[in-house]
Amino acid sequence: MIVLTIVACVCLAQGQEPTKSIAERLGYPKDAKLLIVHADDLGMAHSVNVATIKAFETGLVNSGSIMVPCPWLSEIAAFARTNPQADLGLHLTLTSEWTALRWGPVSSKDRVTSLLDKDGYFRLTETEAAKNADPKQVEMEITAQIEKARALGIQPTHLDSHMGTLYQNKELFEVFLRVARSNKLPVRVARAWFTRADFLPSVLRPDDVYIDRTLDINPSVAPNEWGKFYSDEIRKLEPGVTEVIIHLAHDDAEMQGATSDHPNWGAAWRQRDFDFFTSDSFRKLLQENNIKLITWKELGKLIK
Amino acid sequence: MIVLTIVACVCLAQGQEPTKSIAERLGYPKDAKLLIVHADDLGMAHSVNVATIKAFETGLVNSGSIMVPCPWLSEIAAFARTNPQADLGLHLTLTSEWTALRWGPVSSKDRVTSLLDKDGYFRLTETEAAKNADPKQVEMEITAQIEKARALGIQPTHLDSHMGTLYQNKELFEVFLRVARSNKLPVRVARAWFTRADFLPSVLRPDDVYIDRTLDINPSVAPNEWGKFYSDEIRKLEPGVTEVIIHLAHDDAEMQGATSDHPNWGAAWRQRDFDFFTSDSFRKLLQENNIKLITWKELGKLIK
Repeated sequence: MIVLTIVACVCLAQGQEPTKSIAERLGYPKDAKLLIVHADDLGMAHSVNVATIKAFETGLVNSGSIMVPCPWLSEIAAFARTNPQADLGLHLTLTSEWTALRWGPVSSKDRVTSLLDKDGYFRLTETEAAKNADPKQVEMEITAQIEKARALGIQPTHLDSHMGTLYQNKELFEVFLRVARSNKLPVRVARAWFTRADFLPSVLRPDDVYIDRTLDINPSVAPNEWGKFYSDEIRKLEPGVTEVIIHLAHDDAEMQGATSDHPNWGAAWRQRDFDFFTSDSFRKLLQENNIKLITWKELGKLIK
Repeated sequence: MIVLTIVACVCLAQGQEPTKSIAERLGYPKDAKLLIVHADDLGMAHSVNVATIKAFETGLVNSGSIMVPCPWLSEIAAFARTNPQADLGLHLTLTSEWTALRWGPVSSKDRVTSLLDKDGYFRLTETEAAKNADPKQVEMEITAQIEKARALGIQPTHLDSHMGTLYQNKELFEVFLRVARSNKLPVRVARAWFTRADFLPSVLRPDDVYIDRTLDINPSVAPNEWGKFYSDEIRKLEPGVTEVIIHLAHDDAEMQGATSDHPNWGAAWRQRDFDFFTSDSFRKLLQENNIKLITWKELGKLIK
């Protein structure tokens, strides 16, 4: 609470207006229900790329982020080059969580040793990654991922962090934010997270662009409750900017192989997300609840 | 010819017998028809791994080699650990030939810059790779691939070279041979290649282990002639050690995605190889033509 007061003082000291809601800054009424339907993990696998591109074509999934270190980056980069209107950010990656399919850094390995496991891949979990990561090496690696994406013709509209590694502690988040600001890109941060990551308000500046809340499904939802969970959440969507974070792929041999020992966020999970978010019932829900889809590209335009 | 004479002199000077055929060195009659049925590219994709493992189970495909830099290495390494009897070598990799699915070195990138394209991957073709490769960096990288394979519990029985990059010139082949000898592993070399790579006899020593010939299909064979090509070749197989080099995968979404712009050695090609080499008709051909399957493991035992 003290922290928030300080932020407000800084804001007024710089002669700015008291902070408007993000919806208002975008030019919408304060009570507008604005939604980004965002697919993570592009580049991870062919199945992910194909399903996400197909979902983009419906217009119902309207944003996504790319894992630069992953084997199928080139395929999604080709899509980005021929679809410059697509709202594609970078899913900055410091973990390699599957056991059959693995990846490592864009940087030279000997310069980012703190990020690697004994086999030279990124570590399996975000907690291990954050515990061992040297912030300078993190900055080098995420900068390298942004540079590589740009070299391949991707013009990222936003940044987020695969498995949330860059939100694991204040030091990593400061690196993340510094890199994002120097690239004039918005990062996935939600006001609703301030209670569970109390360092966030102290690090953010009033001119940073962040949204109100994120929404994602979790392993406690039974497969046959998938549509009900999302439908209920969409019906009770609050005004402001919400990002629903989804994971798309087909339940095919490749994804089953990649995720065989890890059903959460696995092949069937991703197929269920695909089925719901490309469905007519999702389209109707958006209409019936007066929900407007917006993109990170629009949010990024607020950055000066 | 002069070179061969010198080799013979060295051989006799060291008090060895005049060179026996490789079949005889293995303890078989000189006229035995010995065959290695060898699947390349393990680790490249899930589809390749799954198809090859299934083919191994038939007993008709009895050898294979692994691409250490590839994304699905961990999956095939797990198979190698639980199947130590499997005849698995390393398909030393210095190229990344597909455009949607790519990979790079095991070594730190800044130590093997001559092997990389502008995006930090291995180059697309073996000629580009060979033309640009610094032999010292090649030695570092292939040594790193062997060390990584061993660290993951793979006990390689032999070495070969993806897309033949290490046979492109004498200098690279010398590096390859030096690394193979220091690891006491046989390399894929065939006496029948001596006419098309004339540096081979001058570099090989009489105690090196190499086979008589290799057999592989090529893009001039029409898809509906696949079985006929292999059947004809098997019927006319000459005595000695032959390695038939095949490429297995399923014609599924992942392989179609990887090879979409490159039908040669593509998804349908690999499915045809899988279908033929796991078939009862191939099994019958082996029996009818009195062909015995042998492995690189047996060949490797000849190395002192």
